[in-house]
Amino acid sequence: MSKPKILVTNDDGITAPGIRALVSFMNEIGDVTVVAPNSPQSGKGHAITINSTLTFEEITLEGPQRDYSLSGTPVDCVKFALDKILDYKPDLVVSGINHGANNSINVIYSGTMSAAVEAGVEGLQAIGFSLLDYNWDADFSQSKEFIQDIVRKILANPLPQGIVLNVNIPKLPAEEIKGIRVCKQADAKWEENFDERINPHGKKYYWLTGYFNNMDSSPDADENALSNGYVSVVPVKFDLTAYEYIDVLKKSLE
Amino acid sequence: MSKPKILVTNDDGITAPGIRALVSFMNEIGDVTVVAPNSPQSGKGHAITINSTLTFEEITLEGPQRDYSLSGTPVDCVKFALDKILDYKPDLVVSGINHGANNSINVIYSGTMSAAVEAGVEGLQAIGFSLLDYNWDADFSQSKEFIQDIVRKILANPLPQGIVLNVNIPKLPAEEIKGIRVCKQADAKWEENFDERINPHGKKYYWLTGYFNNMDSSPDADENALSNGYVSVVPVKFDLTAYEYIDVLKKSLE
Repeated sequence: MSKPKILVTNDDGITAPGIRALVSFMNEIGDVTVVAPNSPQSGKGHAITINSTLTFEEITLEGPQRDYSLSGTPVDCVKFALDKILDYKPDLVVSGINHGANNSINVIYSGTMSAAVEAGVEGLQAIGFSLLDYNWDADFSQSKEFIQDIVRKILANPLPQGIVLNVNIPKLPAEEIKGIRVCKQADAKWEENFDERINPHGKKYYWLTGYFNNMDSSPDADENALSNGYVSVVPVKFDLTAYEYIDVLKKSLE
Repeated sequence: MSKPKILVTNDDGITAPGIRALVSFMNEIGDVTVVAPNSPQSGKGHAITINSTLTFEEITLEGPQRDYSLSGTPVDCVKFALDKILDYKPDLVVSGINHGANNSINVIYSGTMSAAVEAGVEGLQAIGFSLLDYNWDADFSQSKEFIQDIVRKILANPLPQGIVLNVNIPKLPAEEIKGIRVCKQADAKWEENFDERINPHGKKYYWLTGYFNNMDSSPDADENALSNGYVSVVPVKFDLTAYEYIDVLKKSLE
């Protein structure tokens, strides 16, 4: 049986420790190609590059995989890989491991998850992985067992069309992680607090800052599974239609 | 009764004809503040600015509204308006009128719709408007009646928490538009075809191009309502959880 073909991308950039860890885990499972941004792309959501151009180069990094560095966003990487780099449809697209949480509402801001969603739109199996540790030198080793387990199970039992997975891993030693929980996206939001500063020329400028406000106490919310020491898995879809509200709206608008 | 407070933004930039048309329509309904990008931000999806800073300035444009130009993305504009410019919660946030279609899968790439979604995340009533005409000098006048009608109805009957509207308007004279149809997001995708060129220094570079592939023939899909001459309205939610697949996934992953 031939090895599964796996495309790896991320949003922290091709040399980030998180993607290198993911590549090493995937090299034990399949035939790996990496197409990832040449610079950090955190918070880029589902951005695509339409008003400027892209360049790419093959680079040499440790391991048997092929590595391509692209001057675009995570979503650009998926689109470009499928059109210009791969001459086959990969069996799986994995994105990450993100340095930091992408659970709850973060799914819509996240370049990591947008790459996975884009792969889903393209009709491919896709999973985004994130570790709840923003440090560049975070320890990704405890993720290995869970990531490989989830990947093997999805390769064996593919997701239906229109669904990708959002996997978040708590910042805990492997022996303290209690297992995997399939969850819903917690109802939460960021409360903004732009930090105002004055530049050397006397003009005001602002940094986006804020705090995360979890408004969801239900035990099946990803935020709560993570707080309780579980790896959270949320099935994510990109048909955003609120079907349950169509009939109400028909009465008021048509 | 005081006039409703309306925040207007877009992704084509604060001076685009589409947003100026929307501002003029909203000035007849409410008390309008504009916080919009100082440069084109098409295709920016739900991107936020976290690795650089933002500046803004108040500018003077025709009309009674206040206009603030921000150096960020559409989502930044909503966040910044709520934290630093408005000292109240607006009754409604409208985004657009986008120069070009945002129906179907375009909802996830669109800066226009991401601004509306961000307002929804913030707990506000929000609508994104797009005209199926990419021309800078498109005729937005036929949109007026439909946009004002939808806005007045939503102000009178607010949407439930967690839902915003994606409104697309066909490129037709007013008398040929058949009415409003509440729809689902059509199942469609872009088929990429990156255009390869050679720069003056001999290096390859690429433009993202592609064609839109509608795979959805159901009459309630927005793509089909638009083709048939209707204004399409899709209720959009930002809880991306595929609830229907949670139980299946629990059996295979937990």
